[in-house]
Amino acid sequence: MGIMGTGFMAHLLKLEKITMDEEKLGFACDYMKGAHPNIMKAMTETNMISTVGYGKDEISERARERVRKVCGCPKAAVEFLVGGTQTNAVVIDAFLRPYQGVIAAETGHIGCHEAGAIEFGGHKVLTLKQKDGKISPEQVERYLEDFYNDESFEHMVMPGMVYLSQPTEYGTLYTKEQLQAFRRVCDAYHIPLYVDGARLAYALACPENDVSLKDMASLCDAFYIGGTKCGAMFGEAVVIPDPNAVPYFFTIIKQHGALLAKGRLLGLQFDELFKDDLYLRIGQPAIKAADQIREALQEKGYQMIYPSFTNQSFCVMENEKLQRFGDKVSYSFWEKYDDSHTVIRLATDWAAAEEETQALIDVIRKLA
Amino acid sequence: MGIMGTGFMAHLLKLEKITMDEEKLGFACDYMKGAHPNIMKAMTETNMISTVGYGKDEISERARERVRKVCGCPKAAVEFLVGGTQTNAVVIDAFLRPYQGVIAAETGHIGCHEAGAIEFGGHKVLTLKQKDGKISPEQVERYLEDFYNDESFEHMVMPGMVYLSQPTEYGTLYTKEQLQAFRRVCDAYHIPLYVDGARLAYALACPENDVSLKDMASLCDAFYIGGTKCGAMFGEAVVIPDPNAVPYFFTIIKQHGALLAKGRLLGLQFDELFKDDLYLRIGQPAIKAADQIREALQEKGYQMIYPSFTNQSFCVMENEKLQRFGDKVSYSFWEKYDDSHTVIRLATDWAAAEEETQALIDVIRKLA
Amino acid sequence: MGIMGTGFMAHLLKLEKITMDEEKLGFACDYMKGAHPNIMKAMTETNMISTVGYGKDEISERARERVRKVCGCPKAAVEFLVGGTQTNAVVIDAFLRPYQGVIAAETGHIGCHEAGAIEFGGHKVLTLKQKDGKISPEQVERYLEDFYNDESFEHMVMPGMVYLSQPTEYGTLYTKEQLQAFRRVCDAYHIPLYVDGARLAYALACPENDVSLKDMASLCDAFYIGGTKCGAMFGEAVVIPDPNAVPYFFTIIKQHGALLAKGRLLGLQFDELFKDDLYLRIGQPAIKAADQIREALQEKGYQMIYPSFTNQSFCVMENEKLQRFGDKVSYSFWEKYDDSHTVIRLATDWAAAEEETQALIDVIRKLA
Amino acid sequence: MGIMGTGFMAHLLKLEKITMDEEKLGFACDYMKGAHPNIMKAMTETNMISTVGYGKDEISERARERVRKVCGCPKAAVEFLVGGTQTNAVVIDAFLRPYQGVIAAETGHIGCHEAGAIEFGGHKVLTLKQKDGKISPEQVERYLEDFYNDESFEHMVMPGMVYLSQPTEYGTLYTKEQLQAFRRVCDAYHIPLYVDGARLAYALACPENDVSLKDMASLCDAFYIGGTKCGAMFGEAVVIPDPNAVPYFFTIIKQHGALLAKGRLLGLQFDELFKDDLYLRIGQPAIKAADQIREALQEKGYQMIYPSFTNQSFCVMENEKLQRFGDKVSYSFWEKYDDSHTVIRLATDWAAAEEETQALIDVIRKLA
Repeated sequence: MGIMGTGFMAHLLKLEKITMDEEKLGFACDYMKGAHPNIMKAMTETNMISTVGYGKDEISERARERVRKVCGCPKAAVEFLVGGTQTNAVVIDAFLRPYQGVIAAETGHIGCHEAGAIEFGGHKVLTLKQKDGKISPEQVERYLEDFYNDESFEHMVMPGMVYLSQPTEYGTLYTKEQLQAFRRVCDAYHIPLYVDGARLAYALACPENDVSLKDMASLCDAFYIGGTKCGAMFGEAVVIPDPNAVPYFFTIIKQHGALLAKGRLLGLQFDELFKDDLYLRIGQPAIKAADQIREALQEKGYQMIYPSFTNQSFCVMENEKLQRFGDKVSYSFWEKYDDSHTVIRLATDWAAAEEETQALIDVIRKLA
Repeated sequence: MGIMGTGFMAHLLKLEKITMDEEKLGFACDYMKGAHPNIMKAMTETNMISTVGYGKDEISERARERVRKVCGCPKAAVEFLVGGTQTNAVVIDAFLRPYQGVIAAETGHIGCHEAGAIEFGGHKVLTLKQKDGKISPEQVERYLEDFYNDESFEHMVMPGMVYLSQPTEYGTLYTKEQLQAFRRVCDAYHIPLYVDGARLAYALACPENDVSLKDMASLCDAFYIGGTKCGAMFGEAVVIPDPNAVPYFFTIIKQHGALLAKGRLLGLQFDELFKDDLYLRIGQPAIKAADQIREALQEKGYQMIYPSFTNQSFCVMENEKLQRFGDKVSYSFWEKYDDSHTVIRLATDWAAAEEETQALIDVIRKLA
Repeated sequence: MGIMGTGFMAHLLKLEKITMDEEKLGFACDYMKGAHPNIMKAMTETNMISTVGYGKDEISERARERVRKVCGCPKAAVEFLVGGTQTNAVVIDAFLRPYQGVIAAETGHIGCHEAGAIEFGGHKVLTLKQKDGKISPEQVERYLEDFYNDESFEHMVMPGMVYLSQPTEYGTLYTKEQLQAFRRVCDAYHIPLYVDGARLAYALACPENDVSLKDMASLCDAFYIGGTKCGAMFGEAVVIPDPNAVPYFFTIIKQHGALLAKGRLLGLQFDELFKDDLYLRIGQPAIKAADQIREALQEKGYQMIYPSFTNQSFCVMENEKLQRFGDKVSYSFWEKYDDSHTVIRLATDWAAAEEETQALIDVIRKLA
Repeated sequence: MGIMGTGFMAHLLKLEKITMDEEKLGFACDYMKGAHPNIMKAMTETNMISTVGYGKDEISERARERVRKVCGCPKAAVEFLVGGTQTNAVVIDAFLRPYQGVIAAETGHIGCHEAGAIEFGGHKVLTLKQKDGKISPEQVERYLEDFYNDESFEHMVMPGMVYLSQPTEYGTLYTKEQLQAFRRVCDAYHIPLYVDGARLAYALACPENDVSLKDMASLCDAFYIGGTKCGAMFGEAVVIPDPNAVPYFFTIIKQHGALLAKGRLLGLQFDELFKDDLYLRIGQPAIKAADQIREALQEKGYQMIYPSFTNQSFCVMENEKLQRFGDKVSYSFWEKYDDSHTVIRLATDWAAAEEETQALIDVIRKLA
């Protein structure tokens, strides 16, 4: 599965002035652009003020308050970290005891594309088979039941957490009912439920989604609200509804080299993202564009292989056709489908422009 | 030793608009402000362009080229990371074998103020006594000699690297001659020499300094050029003159959760910092201000306890006097001197303003 | 899969004198008894001599020489460790770079029953689907090929070693031809091949086996010769044919808490095991007994589910029948077969007694 | 400091029969011989019985009961491990949270001679200056007080345990009063107190010692009763008076590769060591011999540099004299005293023979 598109051709920068040779339409991923204009504006305006470091400043505190409010958990611990892999490693290491592992879909980001960051912290990722990028509460329950029924369980890595992604790496969504079922299983086995929300804005902007931030705060022991892929320059907001769940979380962050000296840069971004509930709407252009793209693809008979309603669309394309497609569009190689077909991913983002989407649709329609 | 001043009083932010109630003069540390205006400008201008992620973009590549050029090492591996603790952990883990530790001054940042990030990676910090924040090549040589002469050495943590800071945590400087002597010791024992340059711009801007970036590149196996404290929003540039020294450095960065998705944000900052050699001059206002502050302190008879020529100044102040000083100035508590005196640190930065320095000097002069 | 039999009923020890109430026939596992008589005799005779510690004594050195000789690798590094999980962790940590993982069958001991010892050292176990407890060279080759063809490979755990068990956890054997093919794949990708020989004596005693110790030494980068399950009290002999492959292996052992102070106890056991090639024959009683048991089971129509020729036999038994079987025999629960059947394991060992085997066969024959 | 004597000359083993060329008197260390005869006898007698593995057998359970009884803690968790470094790593990793370190004397075994086993588990050893191998409760209290008073404490490794050795690495003893004071400090800061009893039998056999096993059980959160150096072949018994203090200790042991398959071998040894309170007397021959040696040394005017009353004696010897001494006696080099003198260690053990002690005393008396 691809992280960057095969067809991608880096934009050229000429001379001293940074220019872009827009040879291709960019749909390879959702972290190619900078930040939402509100964020850039706030960064510029506050650039020369002096604040205390490490996120103990008042901008960060205000951002925390906004997050607590929108999540309906007024006492939550809220910490801002720089990136997703880092956040997963910090949260997982913070919750697990050394002899515990984390249950995840075999396609979960922590098990595939984090270069062993979880193992670096000493923990095993206990993978379950996925369907459309998801695991089911029943699967997890069976795994836990089997584990404790195995008379050798003391010789095995104890499952100490459930990790989900919302939306998943395949763009699919867990329903509120499913999350409630996960909660029940986790309660029964006294293990925490953690949700990776790297692309959470795209779930929240999706009409098919029925899980609100308040739902997540009431159902999860920890989750993070993704900034990097959702309008921020960088940054993820970890929400731990019970502030006593993880003592000395600050030190754990520091120990992981994940503490930003000028922490206000993170606070400021989430302050802007949650001002006037911007975050709840910020994914809408991406969803609108993705829906149009999916429609165009289906019209032309392409198979959509996962039921994704979010900003990522996955379709099967004949290899020869794909080559011509790739001349005009930067996409992401996902996986080989068969000897003559490939699964590709097309990603839109918060800054999706109508004209760019139309241009892509035109390419799709005209592709012979 | 303090990281944030006791006397510090966070600047207030009122209503929606971020304002500052400048109640105190801010000399507590050197990471309280944002970024150099050139950086803010470039960030704004490039905000909406699309680039490939993870630092593989052309802005980052251009920045790498600039760093290689100013360091005189055209083939060097140059990678941009977000923060100092992260950078130290990544570089040290990359160079050391699991059974090796890193030699450092007992006051080295890695041994004190990184919350065990080096131990998290499995390595021991082997501390030597410091003088003015420095260790000597002779000390290191003796340590290595004693180690291999100890018949139990195979039962002990093998010294596998020498870690220095330039300038040190105490603001002092290693001379070129000293670095050359460290090089000889490291060569004799086949271990790498690594220099933490979190505040390197303040060394480079200092007339007393005789170690250039080219010297560092020719004498060190790895070093980092600090951005966070030296004009960047955030970011540190790791330079490894021999690009083959650390295979798969990119994966090691990722595994540490230290890979920035929108890597161009780091590249762009170093691109600006090294455009027209800005970095070589950027520390000058800090040094000028610090010199004036030290002069004022000495005039009034305060003892300066380390021979610092860089942006940090350390003096001994009588406790009762300090309380009044702290009403007007945010400083950093360093350590207890005796029952009635305290060592404080006053830090200046790249954005030091003449009027603020004068205001501090006035406070010093008038302090009864 | 079971480590200890459900049906197992611990032998009773009454009063001060240790006695055994032999209520059941013991076929649950192969590490229930002490050591070969030769070992006990040598231990007793040398008990009060004084030797230098940590395996640097002459008994250990003599044992090393014997191992080198029988393996045909006169320069090999040979180190004696206490147990299997420990040995796997030490060898794998010694060979892998921090960002690398180890390829293993999903049923490999390191991935299932070592409580995360490999992850504790920071490494991921990269599991491949097994057939009869084995993986194929083709599978490994495809995995490696796919890995390096994945454009995101730098974001993933690099496969840095191949781990096999000979015999496997399912009692099956790799052929010499297969090991040669693994060797070619490993050479092509420059990664080491490591074989876990916890039950190696039972392979060597097996007529169907065509892999000698010399073959292993010529085909593997490292392997261990199991003592614990093969006649020793405890102990495993690691063989690394190229002594320069792992510098400071001694310190790595110590760091893992795996260095036995009175190292001669290990040396002495392997000295006895390789005196007059005892180890090459020591598994024969187990194989003979296992063959008889398998024959008896098949005569009665039980399905043998893996083609095991070694000391472990796996058959499917109807649950109701199993309950009665379990009243007389301690066996090992392996896994659920279906709602009414179970897979069980019957293990024999180097000290298998003819009468005990016959008693088991009688039970099998009479089981209605 | 030495682990094995420079003067040590390995005993020769000739032909097939293991013989010893007793060229020198052996006082280099206390782990050169095998096991107490009672242990060898019990091992031989039980060699061919079958027991369940991993210390879940009845011999081990009976040994646990004996340990609980002599320690006066009927509910204690008691686990038997193989060696000291392993035991320290397992216990420390089990008690500490990932962001915590362990306070120890700078001469503590965990900080010097365990090859970084504690750092391998991710924890820093926080060293305090020692006096005669000891730290004081006041030192620890001051350290903890200073730590929490340091406004940067969240950026530092949190002290999470106190580690002591009884007797210390320098042969000295903590008094009951001192242990009580450590207990109060630990209670005040809610951190566990752990005592490494590698040579505990030599403390218990010492008239100057006033700390009983019951005292240790009532004052410590965990301690271990050393077997390896005190009459066992190998083995250490961890005692955790509150069995709920460490959940899943068994799995932690397994994860560290420290679980002995044939666990009864450990249980059996401690069963013998605590039968008729043997362990409480087993060190007496060593103490008697050491006292005689110290008397002889002092008579001849040698400076004893630590107030050791246990089985280790440390004296200063002129280098030229030492060379002649070393021709006849295997001793342990401890450290350089000055350019012409050396500190040496002479160790006796549970099997100290009167005639060997007299022979050493003769050498001392005649040494010109």
